[in-house]
Amino acid sequence: MNTVITKKKHNFYAGPAILPASVLKQATAATEDFAGMGLSILEISHRSPQFTAVVEEATSLAKELLGLSDDYEVLFLTGGASSQFYMAPMNLLPQDGTACYINTGTWSNKAIKEAKLFGNVNELASSAESNYTFIPKDYEIPSDATYIHMTSNNTVFGTQHHEFPETNVPIVCDMSSDIFSRPIDVSKFGIIYCGAQKNMGPAGVTLVIVRKDLLGKTGRPIPTMLDYNTHIAKGSMFNTPPAFPIYVSMLTMRWVKENGGVEAMAEKNEAKAKLLYGEIDSNPLFEGTTAVEDRSLMNVTFKMKDTEMEAAFLEACAAADCVGIKGHRSVGGFRASIYNAMPIESVQVLVDVMRDFASQNA
Amino acid sequence: MNTVITKKKHNFYAGPAILPASVLKQATAATEDFAGMGLSILEISHRSPQFTAVVEEATSLAKELLGLSDDYEVLFLTGGASSQFYMAPMNLLPQDGTACYINTGTWSNKAIKEAKLFGNVNELASSAESNYTFIPKDYEIPSDATYIHMTSNNTVFGTQHHEFPETNVPIVCDMSSDIFSRPIDVSKFGIIYCGAQKNMGPAGVTLVIVRKDLLGKTGRPIPTMLDYNTHIAKGSMFNTPPAFPIYVSMLTMRWVKENGGVEAMAEKNEAKAKLLYGEIDSNPLFEGTTAVEDRSLMNVTFKMKDTEMEAAFLEACAAADCVGIKGHRSVGGFRASIYNAMPIESVQVLVDVMRDFASQNA
Repeated sequence: MNTVITKKKHNFYAGPAILPASVLKQATAATEDFAGMGLSILEISHRSPQFTAVVEEATSLAKELLGLSDDYEVLFLTGGASSQFYMAPMNLLPQDGTACYINTGTWSNKAIKEAKLFGNVNELASSAESNYTFIPKDYEIPSDATYIHMTSNNTVFGTQHHEFPETNVPIVCDMSSDIFSRPIDVSKFGIIYCGAQKNMGPAGVTLVIVRKDLLGKTGRPIPTMLDYNTHIAKGSMFNTPPAFPIYVSMLTMRWVKENGGVEAMAEKNEAKAKLLYGEIDSNPLFEGTTAVEDRSLMNVTFKMKDTEMEAAFLEACAAADCVGIKGHRSVGGFRASIYNAMPIESVQVLVDVMRDFASQNA
Repeated sequence: MNTVITKKKHNFYAGPAILPASVLKQATAATEDFAGMGLSILEISHRSPQFTAVVEEATSLAKELLGLSDDYEVLFLTGGASSQFYMAPMNLLPQDGTACYINTGTWSNKAIKEAKLFGNVNELASSAESNYTFIPKDYEIPSDATYIHMTSNNTVFGTQHHEFPETNVPIVCDMSSDIFSRPIDVSKFGIIYCGAQKNMGPAGVTLVIVRKDLLGKTGRPIPTMLDYNTHIAKGSMFNTPPAFPIYVSMLTMRWVKENGGVEAMAEKNEAKAKLLYGEIDSNPLFEGTTAVEDRSLMNVTFKMKDTEMEAAFLEACAAADCVGIKGHRSVGGFRASIYNAMPIESVQVLVDVMRDFASQNA
């Protein structure tokens, strides 16, 4: 591979999303010839020593980056966070048990719907009445709840839990859009799950972190592939895993580690968010869409005070090679996703477009 | 991409398995820059027009290659054939219904185990007592069975159904290792499923063909992601699909079409199998492991009459750059997987190794 990857676009897609340039370069090389095998990574046995080494490194990187104790297992599964919406209650919630849910938007609602198939659901708090512009904080967690479910970052609405409740009830958390973006106290969590395609890798693999002692208590029969214990026993290799998505996720986790781990990621993410929210707040044409204290550091949602101007602004973004800026239909306006791999230089380009647009339309 | 992919190895892996060189070349290019977007295919939105075009082409190629009528839907899911072992009965079999299973080995057994969670299982025929060296043919299918399940090709044991029974009961079939390898009369089938990683693409995507009128009759609640109707309604895009595995599968199906479709594949597969089985039968050191009439055209299993010589033969294979020849532990000996993408020239190399080995050890 002598070719150089030249990034021509500033990639603000919400997911699948930007990956580090060095990761893409290695992924490209492995698609051609992996580990000197004379074969593409796409066509080798998942039982080959070269590939089992990938799964082992991915598992150990996830443990190291999140600071997991031996109470937890790391699984690489498929089906996205959407499959964890039912797998988590199927594995944890007895039919007569109660799980609490904090409803912070689209993905929370989907999780609540699936949990109802497996036990009682107590929707403890919700920001639905304000179209999910904030994170509810005033609620009491019943001590007999099996777990409390939260969506740590709301990709659609641009809000984020900056703190998690103090409770003895294990938290089950969808961290699809902010995994590895900041330090967390893992000991609060019973399950952490995430689709890879925001901060961890390409689409096609789902990371699941499980506290082992919570399993095996529902009494219900579970199909083999849906039982976390199946995959724990086989180190995510019970059946053929999604080999290439796991490989690229491993490369991305390696990149996080080489760049200072989740603490360094958090520092850079805060700087990027400060730059962009600062412009939104000071630019006369724009405004944020969420409560300031709950703003997401990953998905920055904003709109124009005069919505008639939004099409022209999108054109200005496109002209500056900024892609993926259009907001989700349930919020409107714009959404700039600025995950770990997004360089601050690209955020600066977007800020410059906003400033130029304001001065041209003053 | 000016680099040339030079294939140094003859890839006989059982799966993930060999892919066409031209497909790997395009996959490598897309990992660098996809469709002139200035972005890798690994980091673009699955809702982008460039990617939705991939899913649409993959769907339409599967329909065309298999000759599907409008009674059938094509789905690209995840979780491998192992997940279809429970999804098929979950979606088709009422709790008081009966599904018939033909037990031809490892994968049939796994399918039978999962089906028992959802209804009655009638194991109609089995070749277990001979360690699965043949395909059972003498059985009568009860006309009131909900479906009959078969594993069309047995990757582990090297047997293959060369014919399917004449019956009005819909056949549910695991075609993981021989999809697109030969023409089939699809109208006999209720569901066809396959993990991609043998004849269709890389690991990480599962093709499911569903006869729509069979759905919605079980009366059981089904989690959203496990209901075939969810994915039918959204054209395999209910949630983020495994984008890159789908893309590479689409390229592989395009390659099948450009190379004459399943009829031309069958002709080439027969020639390759004839060459290799011919050598096994005429070489004094080797013998086949299955009934001759049930030999697989995809996975050629064989052993040495003197098992003491097997290690030396494996070394001779490695010296000739033939990889993935070692047999599965439940059969022993050797297994050469010669899927669609395997050129006859590589089979000839293996045959030459066998001949040379025999003359050196005469």
